[in-house]
Amino acid sequence: MIRQIEGGITAVSGVSAFGLKDGKKGLAIILAEGPAAGVFTRNKVIAAPLIVTKEKLGTNGGFLSAVIANSGNANAYTGEQGLKDAKEMTRLLAEKIKADDKFIAVASTGVIGRKMDMNWISSHIEPVLSSVSTTEEGSVGAMRAIMTTDLVPKVFACEVKTDAGSYRIAGIAKGSGMIEPNMGTMLGFVYTDAAVASGQLQKCLTAAVNKSFNMIVVDGDTSTNDMCLLTATGKSGIRITDGKSLEEFQNALDLVLIELAKMIAKDGEGATKLVESTVIGAKTKEDAKLAAKSIVRSPLVKTAIFGNDPNWGRIVAAAGYSGADFDQTKITLSVSDGTKTANLVKNGEIIEKDPAVLDELKKIMSAKTIFIKIDLGAGPETATAWGCDLTYDYVKINAEYTT
Amino acid sequence: MIRQIEGGITAVSGVSAFGLKDGKKGLAIILAEGPAAGVFTRNKVIAAPLIVTKEKLGTNGGFLSAVIANSGNANAYTGEQGLKDAKEMTRLLAEKIKADDKFIAVASTGVIGRKMDMNWISSHIEPVLSSVSTTEEGSVGAMRAIMTTDLVPKVFACEVKTDAGSYRIAGIAKGSGMIEPNMGTMLGFVYTDAAVASGQLQKCLTAAVNKSFNMIVVDGDTSTNDMCLLTATGKSGIRITDGKSLEEFQNALDLVLIELAKMIAKDGEGATKLVESTVIGAKTKEDAKLAAKSIVRSPLVKTAIFGNDPNWGRIVAAAGYSGADFDQTKITLSVSDGTKTANLVKNGEIIEKDPAVLDELKKIMSAKTIFIKIDLGAGPETATAWGCDLTYDYVKINAEYTT
Repeated sequence: MIRQIEGGITAVSGVSAFGLKDGKKGLAIILAEGPAAGVFTRNKVIAAPLIVTKEKLGTNGGFLSAVIANSGNANAYTGEQGLKDAKEMTRLLAEKIKADDKFIAVASTGVIGRKMDMNWISSHIEPVLSSVSTTEEGSVGAMRAIMTTDLVPKVFACEVKTDAGSYRIAGIAKGSGMIEPNMGTMLGFVYTDAAVASGQLQKCLTAAVNKSFNMIVVDGDTSTNDMCLLTATGKSGIRITDGKSLEEFQNALDLVLIELAKMIAKDGEGATKLVESTVIGAKTKEDAKLAAKSIVRSPLVKTAIFGNDPNWGRIVAAAGYSGADFDQTKITLSVSDGTKTANLVKNGEIIEKDPAVLDELKKIMSAKTIFIKIDLGAGPETATAWGCDLTYDYVKINAEYTT
Repeated sequence: MIRQIEGGITAVSGVSAFGLKDGKKGLAIILAEGPAAGVFTRNKVIAAPLIVTKEKLGTNGGFLSAVIANSGNANAYTGEQGLKDAKEMTRLLAEKIKADDKFIAVASTGVIGRKMDMNWISSHIEPVLSSVSTTEEGSVGAMRAIMTTDLVPKVFACEVKTDAGSYRIAGIAKGSGMIEPNMGTMLGFVYTDAAVASGQLQKCLTAAVNKSFNMIVVDGDTSTNDMCLLTATGKSGIRITDGKSLEEFQNALDLVLIELAKMIAKDGEGATKLVESTVIGAKTKEDAKLAAKSIVRSPLVKTAIFGNDPNWGRIVAAAGYSGADFDQTKITLSVSDGTKTANLVKNGEIIEKDPAVLDELKKIMSAKTIFIKIDLGAGPETATAWGCDLTYDYVKINAEYTT
């Protein structure tokens, strides 16, 4: 049985954290020891901390003792100096906590192409470390420290009750703009006190990320700094091994990552609404994902949702250019606010001729969460993607970001 | 020798045109007889007029007598009735001009998923036909009739002087939103009075479209109605056959289509600036195109350009997630307004450390045309793409389109 719990990432046994924010700069430290897994951006321009962390996880047997993460500077496109700075961040923390720096992960988020202010980092490690705590305050502190244009902290925790006892999975994530993760997310730090071997952890994380962070779009820009790390402290004593326990663990991990992903989409830069796009009846899984993401990526769909404009033709057009294979005469489309549903197209026939249906759709479009469901009529596969509307504030935030 | 000329499409011998606009609805008729070629959207949701026109060109030996085009309704996603209506439009015009309807092309642009108002169409064919003219007024009339959110008419004409005499190529295009053409454009009607066989015409058109309309992005939404038609009236008596004349014809056709494509990008919905992104040093032609288009598609690059924000890291990030293969340590990047140039990165080394360079970049960013040049350092291939900034007005226009 899986149920949501309070307490943030520190609700997981063996996780302590804290962070502080000083103007645009922030620093977070999370202490949690155990087998670990990571997924990283597929952007060809990979930020220095990702190169460093990926290399460590690839050569240290898949184990982490702590994470150090900063906001305000992405340490991306910063050349040799950037790599040195990222390594230095792990060395500084390792020294303070008496650990081997090969077990320290490093993450950064902020402006691309600016040198790190290493004096600021080194002078703030001590105060952050001295406040590290296993209370919810520690979790919130770490979360707030890595926020940039995020308006709300993104945290989700759950408990899994098994016959052998309970374990927990919890994560925090940040991200609001430059969001179309590809094999990673902006930043996600996820913890469990179940005992899971690192190889298995990697498989579970990749599967969960593909259903969650890789299915959200704010603006279609894949960041240079997307990274999600998962550490299993094992403190609950519950060991994840066989088919059933593994399936349950995967379900719980999926839940945590999907909830965090939805929080990122909902808090997209300038967003006023969350959009959930579900594609059914796709020929292949890839087709289902392409069409679902294309709909939440489309600037025309996003602006229509912002304006409560019942312009559903744009949804069909976005599915059409997604690359998914289907026959336009077999589509079925509906839009819902979770309570009312407007059925617009059935098996390729427009059923919204009645002006009352368009009026109903317009009312639905004004809801805070919009559910789009499209049946491609081409096969058995499904996928769900999440996004947000495109608003004046998205333009405002990004026209004035560095200046 | 190729030189730009006045007069619009009617400057090409054997082309007459006119159009009228009545509120949101418009109707244009272009009369021009000869071998013809067409390219069409690759959106899986293809509008009825495209299905009809493509089928005609595929079975009539590649020949057109006239085009009838309407704005206000895209006749897309309109099922069987939409196909009947598109065919009826060609039949109505054929009857009036005593032609075979298999030689009549039909095009539509406007809202998706609404039935055509055929009464309006049939009652307006007569007045448009009666005003058809070979003067510039005819060309402008046709252009204005097919504009939707376009603010300026897009027309370009040139004359090619050869040893055997002169011929002309001219085109009109419309498009402002839902612009990321894939093997077509919003609507483009191009004419030449050179004599060219339809097979050759198709090859030339496809090559020119790949360098022009297929290299522009306004919002990344590929329309259901993209179509570009090219008709060769042959009235100049100049026959395009061998290597040299063909090369010259292709160059002139490229010029016309690239100029029209740039006009569409510049008149993108809400746009205040034209962005030209040139990629050199790419491993493959496909890589060069991917990176060039990714930069002009990125909402973050586009908002930065709108806000005169010297946030060049976003350009590098957009190239990074484009799918193009390169090594980030080999990039060279500059941004220019055509006069001043800010050199930002050279062989992977940031050379903008000096605050004066960022100030210079900020000045450049306020220009009306921004030239981005990025050398991927990965090979010999190049490509250029065009786009525009993303502004409050783009959101405004599209949040209130159908309502």
